[in-house]
Amino acid sequence: MLNVGDRFELNFTFSEEAVRGFAEVTGDKNPIHLDPEFARTTVFGRPIVHGMFVGGLISRALGCHFPGAGTIYMSQSLKFLAPVFVGESVRIELVLTELGEKGRGTISTTAFRSDGTRVVEGEALVKLPKGAG
Amino acid sequence: MLNVGDRFELNFTFSEEAVRGFAEVTGDKNPIHLDPEFARTTVFGRPIVHGMFVGGLISRALGCHFPGAGTIYMSQSLKFLAPVFVGESVRIELVLTELGEKGRGTISTTAFRSDGTRVVEGEALVKLPKGAG
Repeated sequence: MLNVGDRFELNFTFSEEAVRGFAEVTGDKNPIHLDPEFARTTVFGRPIVHGMFVGGLISRALGCHFPGAGTIYMSQSLKFLAPVFVGESVRIELVLTELGEKGRGTISTTAFRSDGTRVVEGEALVKLPKGAG
Repeated sequence: MLNVGDRFELNFTFSEEAVRGFAEVTGDKNPIHLDPEFARTTVFGRPIVHGMFVGGLISRALGCHFPGAGTIYMSQSLKFLAPVFVGESVRIELVLTELGEKGRGTISTTAFRSDGTRVVEGEALVKLPKGAG
């Protein structure tokens, strides 16, 4: 049984190889993610991780761990507050904030850089696995 | 120059290989996406694409095409309305719905299955590339 306030954390390091892999798989080969020379000409100064890669990790945390197998993803909001640079790590933090009707749960989904900067924040609405809510 | 009402479409087919690739890169190896036998025991009946993979394609369409290079992603909402099965194709449709202050743009982001079913809907807020707004 899950209770409001329960939380889960997942750590992930965005290696250059991982970011290239995400670009290959999705076809998102925007040079801001892949080309240091191009990135130097932008406001970021160096290659940044695809924001939606952080979204993919939130999805992984929800579907594989918290609540885990059987979870049905209904919606997700994502605010991209600060860039994550290639090579950096993030901590994804999920907190169950509400248990609703029909086995639904609201989960706050936040990503932090290792220096504590909040880089992505948002909220997921899920249908909980049977018996979890 | 972009105008309200401008639109862009991107088509993508989710091969088994692509879905395995997304699972490898993000670590989201939930068997609902990868294991037909497991999927048969669920409400979906067969493997489904990671919802956030559709999110990755929306990000690709925004960052690579519309508005394209120089776009800064500020936020994204995603409602997962219906499953996309592995092997199926989707059409991502972006429509510029609002031009705001400080070079900001609001873009509706919708994904359709080939039978016209709306599978994902949501909205992106972006900072447009210089000169685009």
